[in-house]
Amino acid sequence: MNFLNEVAARFPDAISLAAGRPYDGFHTTDDVHRYLRSYLAHLEAQGLSHEQRERRLLQYGRTNGYLGDLIARMLAVDEGIEVPGDAVMVTTGCQEGMVVALRGLCALPGDVVLAVEPCYVGLTGAARLLGVEVVPVPESADGLDPETVREVAAAVRVSGRRPRALYVVPSFANPSGASMPVPARRRLLEVAAQCELLVLEDDPYGLFGLDDEPRPTLKALDTDGRVVYLGSFAKSAFPGARVGFLVADQTVRAADGTRTLLAEELSSVKSLLTVNTAPVAQAVIGGYLVESGCSLRAAGKEKTAFYRANLRALLGALEQSFGEDPRVRWNAPAGGFFAVVDVPLTADGAMLEVSGRDFGVLWTPMGFFYAPGSGGGRRSVRLSCSALPPERVAEGVRRLAELVRAHGDPVEAAGR
Amino acid sequence: MNFLNEVAARFPDAISLAAGRPYDGFHTTDDVHRYLRSYLAHLEAQGLSHEQRERRLLQYGRTNGYLGDLIARMLAVDEGIEVPGDAVMVTTGCQEGMVVALRGLCALPGDVVLAVEPCYVGLTGAARLLGVEVVPVPESADGLDPETVREVAAAVRVSGRRPRALYVVPSFANPSGASMPVPARRRLLEVAAQCELLVLEDDPYGLFGLDDEPRPTLKALDTDGRVVYLGSFAKSAFPGARVGFLVADQTVRAADGTRTLLAEELSSVKSLLTVNTAPVAQAVIGGYLVESGCSLRAAGKEKTAFYRANLRALLGALEQSFGEDPRVRWNAPAGGFFAVVDVPLTADGAMLEVSGRDFGVLWTPMGFFYAPGSGGGRRSVRLSCSALPPERVAEGVRRLAELVRAHGDPVEAAGR
Repeated sequence: MNFLNEVAARFPDAISLAAGRPYDGFHTTDDVHRYLRSYLAHLEAQGLSHEQRERRLLQYGRTNGYLGDLIARMLAVDEGIEVPGDAVMVTTGCQEGMVVALRGLCALPGDVVLAVEPCYVGLTGAARLLGVEVVPVPESADGLDPETVREVAAAVRVSGRRPRALYVVPSFANPSGASMPVPARRRLLEVAAQCELLVLEDDPYGLFGLDDEPRPTLKALDTDGRVVYLGSFAKSAFPGARVGFLVADQTVRAADGTRTLLAEELSSVKSLLTVNTAPVAQAVIGGYLVESGCSLRAAGKEKTAFYRANLRALLGALEQSFGEDPRVRWNAPAGGFFAVVDVPLTADGAMLEVSGRDFGVLWTPMGFFYAPGSGGGRRSVRLSCSALPPERVAEGVRRLAELVRAHGDPVEAAGR
Repeated sequence: MNFLNEVAARFPDAISLAAGRPYDGFHTTDDVHRYLRSYLAHLEAQGLSHEQRERRLLQYGRTNGYLGDLIARMLAVDEGIEVPGDAVMVTTGCQEGMVVALRGLCALPGDVVLAVEPCYVGLTGAARLLGVEVVPVPESADGLDPETVREVAAAVRVSGRRPRALYVVPSFANPSGASMPVPARRRLLEVAAQCELLVLEDDPYGLFGLDDEPRPTLKALDTDGRVVYLGSFAKSAFPGARVGFLVADQTVRAADGTRTLLAEELSSVKSLLTVNTAPVAQAVIGGYLVESGCSLRAAGKEKTAFYRANLRALLGALEQSFGEDPRVRWNAPAGGFFAVVDVPLTADGAMLEVSGRDFGVLWTPMGFFYAPGSGGGRRSVRLSCSALPPERVAEGVRRLAELVRAHGDPVEAAGR
């Protein structure tokens, strides 16, 4: 991603359909002060003394953090996920949750993680950092196909390695925008049980469906302790607190023979990465949860409306700019921040430079999300619509069309 | 450390000479609000627009953080360390700095880190997490002996492994309290150059000498780019922000052939652990730095006086309780939070339970800080004096003396 940031820095006037960050302007630094006060008031209402409240924010603290009960309530209200607060680990952003989960679950030589491909680079990068092998599972237009997962897991087992976990973003995936239908979600849980896989469900975009159709998370459907759920407040609240969480309510046997929750056992990994998540930052998010009655679906209606409008603007602009062009195809995500466009050119770093310099638009090469050297995503781009006002989204797509007009293969050569 | 926390939870009325956390009461949550405002005012004075300031605190941000210039100024003022702001990586506590440094420096199979023994468990734990081998270098009463480092590094090299880095706390070490004399510091840098080692200098306690004698950090003496410096604001400010930093001003060649600073190169590791350090938390510490004119030595005079008084209370109480007891010896640290006491009993977890239950005092078995199975530290305890009011420190030592009276080997058997 450093390369992307560099290109963006060199062409500051380009419209960035590359940046997947949330839109600025849903929260202010005045809110931060108020959230802190709301959290302190919540602690007072819970009976904590002045000294206890001060210590909570200023001292070291519990490795797994203080927001377990508030987050568990949010998950029950917003997602129908029923877990105890002790099953929640507050993490320094979702990224740390991935590192904790990968290290905790893939602890032995030969333990591998399966991951949807194309895949969020934070997951594959974290695995590389830890020396954990990632085995890609190719995604379909409807997200992960459970039967493909079964086949890949079986092949890994035959090879003498142990498939320990499967990473997937079932709703509005990054980068593909794909979502799994509900029957496939249920089937994936059966396959996971058969293959003795844990599922690492990453759900940063779940609030941002184009419609109100319920899309139960895998964790909400999980009756068998198959799912470790990764959550983020970067999009539902804001990124500057760097607060995410991991839910692991599986019962495991500790080293001393007693039974404990997987989240508690994973705390030994978390403690060696960051000791605990900044209590000051936890308090900020805690205050937002308190103020919202632990429903970010309710508190985030303005955000949901904004991202819906932007995704519609993106899909509308694609139709307008490329509807007549047989060389260009794109998917129609049911929500989230991203869509994928197949283009009649090699969408690599060199072309991105040309695009930024000569056409004033940036995008993300889909090749970034495939195993290096695989050639996957070579002629596709990820477009993000989250960080821009809607009119800029449409203008960005018009500029992309100019790039394609100037540098795309002719229709006959594209051969589709 | 989980075991220690459990014991502490079971005996809440015991005096804890185990807890190495800083004293509560130097900062308040009101300060947190003011620090945030001070940092925002600082950004405004630097010419950032309202939108830029809001984005700084609320969005994702630069992987290596925003406090590089303020921290570089602090290092120049307080420590005589001259580095550019770009050589500073802001980390989620010093713990993350250790993980980043270990992963970044020990990247190949056979790369090992040498570490002072007894050693802070955060370092050895982080290495275990990453699969990096730790080779202990035994400490003397005067901290690390550079000649011992040379011998251990040579032996590692002969064995076919590559000694990449050496971890050391030169001033008021945790757990031993030992400090390296200045000539030994200079010699260590020579040895590091000869052995092609980088030195990971961890300096959380440098502000808290018993006297004002200058003890230059290794980084201040480093003219050859040998030292990567790890800093923490947990003691000089407060732990609840979870802000630390890493200084790596070495010039390295990047993958694309250009020259860059090691801190910039290490950002690829940091980005995969936590993306960046919570901007909200950075702003809190940034405000404290701004308010203190970037001198935590000046702003922290009250802290320094407090910890000096506590360490004197600890050493005085040891003399009073054990001065006549030939079975008990202790060291006399020149500053910091810790002293080590050799006791005529097996200072293990079982004895700690007895101590908490029957004598109302907790301490840390020194065995925790040695390689498992080595037997090191079996009959020694670490006493910490940082978290208690001075009179409780003395009472804690009196209770320890009762434990020794009841459970210590008789004088003749102790054989010292």
